[in-house]
Amino acid sequence: MIVSLKSGADAANVLRELTGRGLWVSRVERSTSGGAVHYVIAPHSQPADPEDLARIDGVAEVTTPKPAHPLVSAQGPVVDVGGLKIGTDKPVFMCGPCSLESEAQVHETASVLSSLGISFIRGGAFKPRTSPYAFQGHGDVALEWVRRAADATGMRVVTEALGEGHVPTVAAYADLVQVGSRNMQNFSLLKAIGKTEKPVLLKRGMAATIEEWLLAGEYLLSHGAKGVIFCERGIRGFDDSTRNLLDIGAVALLRYVHRLPVVVDPSHGLGRRDLVAPLGRAALSAGAAGLMIETHPDPASALSDGPQAVPLGELGSLLGRLVSAEGAR
Amino acid sequence: MIVSLKSGADAANVLRELTGRGLWVSRVERSTSGGAVHYVIAPHSQPADPEDLARIDGVAEVTTPKPAHPLVSAQGPVVDVGGLKIGTDKPVFMCGPCSLESEAQVHETASVLSSLGISFIRGGAFKPRTSPYAFQGHGDVALEWVRRAADATGMRVVTEALGEGHVPTVAAYADLVQVGSRNMQNFSLLKAIGKTEKPVLLKRGMAATIEEWLLAGEYLLSHGAKGVIFCERGIRGFDDSTRNLLDIGAVALLRYVHRLPVVVDPSHGLGRRDLVAPLGRAALSAGAAGLMIETHPDPASALSDGPQAVPLGELGSLLGRLVSAEGAR
Amino acid sequence: MIVSLKSGADAANVLRELTGRGLWVSRVERSTSGGAVHYVIAPHSQPADPEDLARIDGVAEVTTPKPAHPLVSAQGPVVDVGGLKIGTDKPVFMCGPCSLESEAQVHETASVLSSLGISFIRGGAFKPRTSPYAFQGHGDVALEWVRRAADATGMRVVTEALGEGHVPTVAAYADLVQVGSRNMQNFSLLKAIGKTEKPVLLKRGMAATIEEWLLAGEYLLSHGAKGVIFCERGIRGFDDSTRNLLDIGAVALLRYVHRLPVVVDPSHGLGRRDLVAPLGRAALSAGAAGLMIETHPDPASALSDGPQAVPLGELGSLLGRLVSAEGAR
Amino acid sequence: MIVSLKSGADAANVLRELTGRGLWVSRVERSTSGGAVHYVIAPHSQPADPEDLARIDGVAEVTTPKPAHPLVSAQGPVVDVGGLKIGTDKPVFMCGPCSLESEAQVHETASVLSSLGISFIRGGAFKPRTSPYAFQGHGDVALEWVRRAADATGMRVVTEALGEGHVPTVAAYADLVQVGSRNMQNFSLLKAIGKTEKPVLLKRGMAATIEEWLLAGEYLLSHGAKGVIFCERGIRGFDDSTRNLLDIGAVALLRYVHRLPVVVDPSHGLGRRDLVAPLGRAALSAGAAGLMIETHPDPASALSDGPQAVPLGELGSLLGRLVSAEGAR
Repeated sequence: MIVSLKSGADAANVLRELTGRGLWVSRVERSTSGGAVHYVIAPHSQPADPEDLARIDGVAEVTTPKPAHPLVSAQGPVVDVGGLKIGTDKPVFMCGPCSLESEAQVHETASVLSSLGISFIRGGAFKPRTSPYAFQGHGDVALEWVRRAADATGMRVVTEALGEGHVPTVAAYADLVQVGSRNMQNFSLLKAIGKTEKPVLLKRGMAATIEEWLLAGEYLLSHGAKGVIFCERGIRGFDDSTRNLLDIGAVALLRYVHRLPVVVDPSHGLGRRDLVAPLGRAALSAGAAGLMIETHPDPASALSDGPQAVPLGELGSLLGRLVSAEGAR
Repeated sequence: MIVSLKSGADAANVLRELTGRGLWVSRVERSTSGGAVHYVIAPHSQPADPEDLARIDGVAEVTTPKPAHPLVSAQGPVVDVGGLKIGTDKPVFMCGPCSLESEAQVHETASVLSSLGISFIRGGAFKPRTSPYAFQGHGDVALEWVRRAADATGMRVVTEALGEGHVPTVAAYADLVQVGSRNMQNFSLLKAIGKTEKPVLLKRGMAATIEEWLLAGEYLLSHGAKGVIFCERGIRGFDDSTRNLLDIGAVALLRYVHRLPVVVDPSHGLGRRDLVAPLGRAALSAGAAGLMIETHPDPASALSDGPQAVPLGELGSLLGRLVSAEGAR
Repeated sequence: MIVSLKSGADAANVLRELTGRGLWVSRVERSTSGGAVHYVIAPHSQPADPEDLARIDGVAEVTTPKPAHPLVSAQGPVVDVGGLKIGTDKPVFMCGPCSLESEAQVHETASVLSSLGISFIRGGAFKPRTSPYAFQGHGDVALEWVRRAADATGMRVVTEALGEGHVPTVAAYADLVQVGSRNMQNFSLLKAIGKTEKPVLLKRGMAATIEEWLLAGEYLLSHGAKGVIFCERGIRGFDDSTRNLLDIGAVALLRYVHRLPVVVDPSHGLGRRDLVAPLGRAALSAGAAGLMIETHPDPASALSDGPQAVPLGELGSLLGRLVSAEGAR
Repeated sequence: MIVSLKSGADAANVLRELTGRGLWVSRVERSTSGGAVHYVIAPHSQPADPEDLARIDGVAEVTTPKPAHPLVSAQGPVVDVGGLKIGTDKPVFMCGPCSLESEAQVHETASVLSSLGISFIRGGAFKPRTSPYAFQGHGDVALEWVRRAADATGMRVVTEALGEGHVPTVAAYADLVQVGSRNMQNFSLLKAIGKTEKPVLLKRGMAATIEEWLLAGEYLLSHGAKGVIFCERGIRGFDDSTRNLLDIGAVALLRYVHRLPVVVDPSHGLGRRDLVAPLGRAALSAGAAGLMIETHPDPASALSDGPQAVPLGELGSLLGRLVSAEGAR
């Protein structure tokens, strides 16, 4: 945003007015023959109303960029997934194993989750693995397992569509289609998923700016998606003491500035089972609409990401620590 | 940490045991003539007890690095600053302006903070400014202002020692000596401050790993500091929509893994006054021992960092939003 | 790699031997009952031969991780693309517009490139754009244009397969199939491209580690690709004075440590036409097998990335500056 | 920079003109009652002359920020250090051990360097070490060693002033005073060094933007420094396969855009002795005024950073590979 001053205006006073509104400004001015002064508002400023700024004494006009993602901006903070509203004051939990490993595992998991009042079962049928030699998921059959288990227990299914070829099947079996971090800017996939007209959970890319993330959401909505829920799952950091760097500031920014629903995945965020509780609490405190948490009946034998999975038998007490006032201490 | 296997051990079983304990492992083995197998535990794993691992069937021995920062590791989660314990369940607030601008400003601020039950007044007499042409602080006289104001209201003073030359004066006037981010690895300064035998608030450098931060604390303690409180204030990120990237995961890591007191500065963390409440709440939920919040009687006329300062008149309601259950929403 | 010491060995001497070989080591040892000492070699050390280390006096054995990407490790530094060898001492140039905009543009470009002795024409038929409202490429017809233009001038074609659906067509028209940065870990796409049995140019993801990049190459080779050429095009940095951060160290690492062919894209790397010459020279000096450079007959009217395109009429003199000894000054 | 359009101007044509000049632009405009259109030039654009842009048909005026670092901008590309000009076409080499370890070591080193025609001996008397328990340098006596050795061989001395207290002594013994990475924003130190009126080698901080680096130089010059030579030595990256991430783009930016002398330290940059040659060559190709290279008579027994030191006996052949056309291959 640019705030342009009238000729002869009291620039120092305009600066005070802008600063008082929480705006970081830099000044540009006519360097040659003198005259024009503009204040440029930095992107890390809090939101400002151009109409309000235009009324400051000495301001000639306020100009702004054209909206880059009109559909995302218009979506609003609540998304409906099969009748369940995500983004209200009541947090939503999405739990389950990293990989869907067997029908028995899925049913056991669904049964426990359901008894804890959790609304979504998660789990991958297709797994994005860094190495081609790692377990790649059981594929279509796993989608059948998780659908049946969800139907039997009254839960909803969120699962990832890893490639364009999987989109029709995933859309048929899932209530909420997940886009993984590595695919956040896989534009062909975003278009294909958008066309299914399903609601989508869009994980943030590991080095994606907020603006790029919102524009990925715009791809989905402009191709037909029925709502986008954003998911912060940790970005790339420089410290190896956590698996990723969970950006809780981004959660508050999406919730309070962009007014969008954000779910946080503290399991991938830090990669440490022992810190899921404090980070989950922090995410909810910062405005998260819900949490995605990896759980497994027996993490020791999980086919992927066992170390960060919470044992299924401990999930109930974890949930208690997430919502009680003293839980994190 | 390295877990070495006995010859002929069931390596898959040991792997399951390690994974079940939340450990991320990679395997190294004798590549030439066969034989030895070791599992190397990744740094982003949760803590493990070597004695426990040594008892796993098939494990020959467990070896660990020598402790790098024994004094920091032994300090414990609570530090006493002039009789006030920091690191207990009761969060501590450190509030005040970025710069100490006048005696009147300081007294007005102290009076309001004191009435809100805040225990520390903060403010800079010496300011680390990116440009040599920016306001550099009022210097020694400002230390007298803040000391008198604190004494008059029963508060404690935290303020930064910017250079070695300022250390004796800052140590004489402050209850808690602050090391700024840009000086986290200014080892001459750390040694000089340590020798004053004061407690220290050590801000994290903008690209410092957790290990480097702890070692900076070790410099302080090994030279005499009476306790180190760590302060997360945002690291350098790649997104310009916040001033810095607040690393809430680091807070949980210091609190729950290293058992150390951490104060969080959400004002610098995001540089956005409008997000101090959700990030402050998130920090406390993640285990922060307290918050450092910039406030100013009139942010519009602040000599530095006005856009991120909370107006003094709004601080009371902000504190309410930080501690109430629904505050952030 | 782990170097394990014999009981009673002179650990200080072993450390000297390892350090003398350019290895950064950390020491782990039996913390409880004493005994075992291992030296762990840091990943940022230069390569070492386990057999050589095993012969150091006092060393009991040397263990190493299992190779993670055997096909990439075995590939070698030279890849053949339609009879042209890439990775020899003679650098290869891949030039052309960001987007293939019209048949006339493509032919004009091919004609000039050919006259300059450039072996590859590049250009996108499908464009990965951050915004869904930006120009997305002319699609299949543009592949026909570029194929005809290349055939008419004796050049080769490198172009990106943006989605799985485009793979068969791109493979039919291109000599070298490009995977873009945003798709480096689009594993479905990597598999589909691998199956075409074409050589592939694999751009590095914006936050990809070297290891992740090599593993993406392993996906390609393990599914059939006839050689992988890596392409460094800039990673995400924290400074907005260049569009990306060109990692020239990675080029040397791939060339001299992993013995693989790397092409560098200085156009995307910095996003600044004025710095293509010095960075292109630097890349070649660091071991790059070639350069990918964006050029356009009229950058002012380019449909994408005009500011970084070198005007076609200036490409000849740029090439001169790249290969002459004093070119960059 | 902001390019403001005349009312009724052909905005598309102005955009073409700007793009044609290599400028990345975003458009801001009056959103409410229509009218004003500005083009904002992105910081990652190549330099533009405001007068030139003001002459584009349809442009009303061009406004620019006030220069932030006038003394740095006015310095120019060549700095004189005791009669030796740095920043000319002839590269300068600064070689020596990480730490000055003994008088014998320093004399042996100086003798070899001198015979190779190297103009500067480097080495630390005071060492910034991450751990307080690591070797901290021999202090003042080491400054005497290096001064005597340099005088005996006709070389110049560059060495680091680690703290304010060391400044007078370092200034007395060194020809060029070094500021280390960790102290780039130690403003008290910058002021103290500036006042000595010596030329300064200013290493870039590990997460410093170019602008912050230039402003640190402005601190030095505005307090009296007789010239600032910038030194790129690697920034913090996310990949552990090199010790740091050497930013060669920054070298070109300082040399060709800001017209300042830059020396590159490939030893710290990657931390790998085996890659000093290709990275050193790349740095020179990108416009570096010289190289700082760590060398040691016996790296195996170095008190610090042995793994990255080039054996003194191999330095001659390394220099040959740096300056010959085929050296890096």
